[in-house]
Amino acid sequence: MNVRLYNARILTMEKNRPVFRGEIWVKNEKIAYIAPQEELEGEWAKDLPRIAWDIEIDCRDNLLMPGFKNAHTHSAMTFLRSYADDVPLDKWLNEKVFPLEAKLSGEDIYHLTRLAILEYLTSGITSIFEMYLTPDTIAEACLDMGMRCVLTSGLNNFSSSIEQLEDEYLKWNKKNSLISYQLGFHAEYTCSKELIYNISQLAHEYRAPVYTHISETAKEVEECKARYGMTPVMFLDTMGVFEFGGGGYHCVHVTGSDMEVLRRRRMCVVTNPASNLKLASGIAPIAEFERRKIPVAIGTDGPASNNCLDMFREMFLVAGLSRVREGDASSPDAMKVLRMATVQGARAMRLSKADVLAKGKYADIIMIDLHQPNMQPIHNIPKNLVYSGSKSNVCMTMINGRILYRNGEFNIGDSVENIYTKCDKIVRRLTDV
Amino acid sequence: MNVRLYNARILTMEKNRPVFRGEIWVKNEKIAYIAPQEELEGEWAKDLPRIAWDIEIDCRDNLLMPGFKNAHTHSAMTFLRSYADDVPLDKWLNEKVFPLEAKLSGEDIYHLTRLAILEYLTSGITSIFEMYLTPDTIAEACLDMGMRCVLTSGLNNFSSSIEQLEDEYLKWNKKNSLISYQLGFHAEYTCSKELIYNISQLAHEYRAPVYTHISETAKEVEECKARYGMTPVMFLDTMGVFEFGGGGYHCVHVTGSDMEVLRRRRMCVVTNPASNLKLASGIAPIAEFERRKIPVAIGTDGPASNNCLDMFREMFLVAGLSRVREGDASSPDAMKVLRMATVQGARAMRLSKADVLAKGKYADIIMIDLHQPNMQPIHNIPKNLVYSGSKSNVCMTMINGRILYRNGEFNIGDSVENIYTKCDKIVRRLTDV
Repeated sequence: MNVRLYNARILTMEKNRPVFRGEIWVKNEKIAYIAPQEELEGEWAKDLPRIAWDIEIDCRDNLLMPGFKNAHTHSAMTFLRSYADDVPLDKWLNEKVFPLEAKLSGEDIYHLTRLAILEYLTSGITSIFEMYLTPDTIAEACLDMGMRCVLTSGLNNFSSSIEQLEDEYLKWNKKNSLISYQLGFHAEYTCSKELIYNISQLAHEYRAPVYTHISETAKEVEECKARYGMTPVMFLDTMGVFEFGGGGYHCVHVTGSDMEVLRRRRMCVVTNPASNLKLASGIAPIAEFERRKIPVAIGTDGPASNNCLDMFREMFLVAGLSRVREGDASSPDAMKVLRMATVQGARAMRLSKADVLAKGKYADIIMIDLHQPNMQPIHNIPKNLVYSGSKSNVCMTMINGRILYRNGEFNIGDSVENIYTKCDKIVRRLTDV
Repeated sequence: MNVRLYNARILTMEKNRPVFRGEIWVKNEKIAYIAPQEELEGEWAKDLPRIAWDIEIDCRDNLLMPGFKNAHTHSAMTFLRSYADDVPLDKWLNEKVFPLEAKLSGEDIYHLTRLAILEYLTSGITSIFEMYLTPDTIAEACLDMGMRCVLTSGLNNFSSSIEQLEDEYLKWNKKNSLISYQLGFHAEYTCSKELIYNISQLAHEYRAPVYTHISETAKEVEECKARYGMTPVMFLDTMGVFEFGGGGYHCVHVTGSDMEVLRRRRMCVVTNPASNLKLASGIAPIAEFERRKIPVAIGTDGPASNNCLDMFREMFLVAGLSRVREGDASSPDAMKVLRMATVQGARAMRLSKADVLAKGKYADIIMIDLHQPNMQPIHNIPKNLVYSGSKSNVCMTMINGRILYRNGEFNIGDSVENIYTKCDKIVRRLTDV
């Protein structure tokens, strides 16, 4: 498919390149050409290739930018949305989440993931870093709908295994350009020392980075210190888990020494501010990560803890919570936050071909409607996006060159109501005590 | 106009009344009838009046609920959106806000307010508590577009006067059902003791409540203590300002004694969480207000400090920030927050006829699209609204019986692009140094 997006404003998210007017040409799954208006109207425009377009879209001066990278989620937890809220964290996990999760089949997870994907598309999310129970059916859901997905394992003492982790790692890193896989496990507090040792061995075997939940709550850190005399970051690093880098989800309660490890191991932090608020976990030290040059990406976390899958909400929270924590209204600025939600997300997810808009990159492009009142006036587009933007401004989501969502309509190979009905049936079965 | 809204789920926000299925009948500006489906299908349904409908809307099982009450805003500050961010608060006010505000005309404020009203409608906001420079042209904008508005004055040492405050109070409390007026002034720190004394006298003359910014920043409180040896709440109360109640915008930095005054004077607090984050002011003690039975309403504050006018964002922030402040993931629950954004807002604004959906109340009704992925599955509608809701779910906004916004289209007596163009022209003039 050849798609021409014209009459656009373009924010490529390449460093120091401001918004300009022009066109983007998409050929199959990649960006073939990005042209400022001057190039198209210039002397040598006649030398541009003539392409037979399958689709031409007048962007009406709206914005094209890279899709958001949701760098941490558990998509299929849609079944728990608004089912287990307003209770303390322990009760939430032990009385609500775990008993229902125990009843989930791989097929359930397929359908529940599809519901989440619908929401990602409405929010301009074009890649997800996904940790949940059955990576195979998650991948299937993403492939069926066209979502780009980096899988990781939620391996712990009770589910998955080292063998399964290795199998999945090998299987999903060569199968399809939409899917890749990074080594990962649930968290220090759900894995035995032996299991963590084996994960570390696997990381060494493949010289691979490792991703896991780290220091989400103060309690988790205290318990790890009681167990091993060290914080989770220090303990996992001592076990060799991060020899080849990787990333920590949450990192709300980290010490200066923890951060030194994260920096030295060239790890990234994935912050999940809405989830950290809703579960009363705390406010992550984003400014301190920035000062220490630890790259920060942004995730929604799963819909049971957040409860929505919306990077606009997360971006505002990253900006606002850091300001309150630091007592400084000047930082982080909007562009910095926008980079976290796009380029740094891609870096955390090792998606170097889906980070910015440029020739040869995957065509993961969203269109932002600037003709809505919350985007007016147009003093500064990045600030508009981060401080007053909303998923309601997303009028097109393209992944891998395919338009999956446009003007409220989905193009995902199934009807929305059909997906709702399937999920509803699953939810009824799961919650039928 | 007679409007029938059928096939709906209805959340009236009356105490302890859960969501039910039924119809709402609107006759001119008021709700004529709210019926559960059983009543419509029951024995005595034949006795229901037969009405010639001007409009009948199939709600497709979507939700009807009272519109949101935005209990604190400065609408016309749309001109500053994304113009003055990422700078410290002092610099923001003195170098950006004040110099540009000095150039504003009443007509500018008319147009800039209209831009904000468009955004309110997209976010399901049906009433605003408005403090800005020229109440007359703000009222004009609201009347022209059909927005319900409670005006108050931003009176301070440099703008407006006691005489003007009294004139406006008398004028706008009898003119039109859409507009009312409450006594107010900007803040302790911008008003002389003499001016505050005069305001107090006026409050006594009319036995009227008074509204003002209070204890938004720690600096403001410190300066007041240096000036008068008391916190702003204590000082203003000592001056007799709150003899007949009223409300405090922000109240981020209040003491136990301050709260005792607020409770004793039966005042309400209007919290503005997004603004308090973005300007690094702090996190308001919402749980403590609740414990002391001080009613809390929610405001967006102006678009220069927030920067968007979206009660969904505010609701999530109220829930999330209070959790983190208290270290308790169980409270406030979603229904409590939803009450703040609707019923308690109406109470703060003295809009007793626009609080809940019931026979005889003003028809300020919004429809929430439950067929979008972020509203699925439907375990619990109030939780869905507060934790995963978005302005993108608002598919109809009706004020005073008139449908002003539906499915992305406005019905406000002017074209949206015309309003954008007018505002753009004003913005260019103001920022042309």
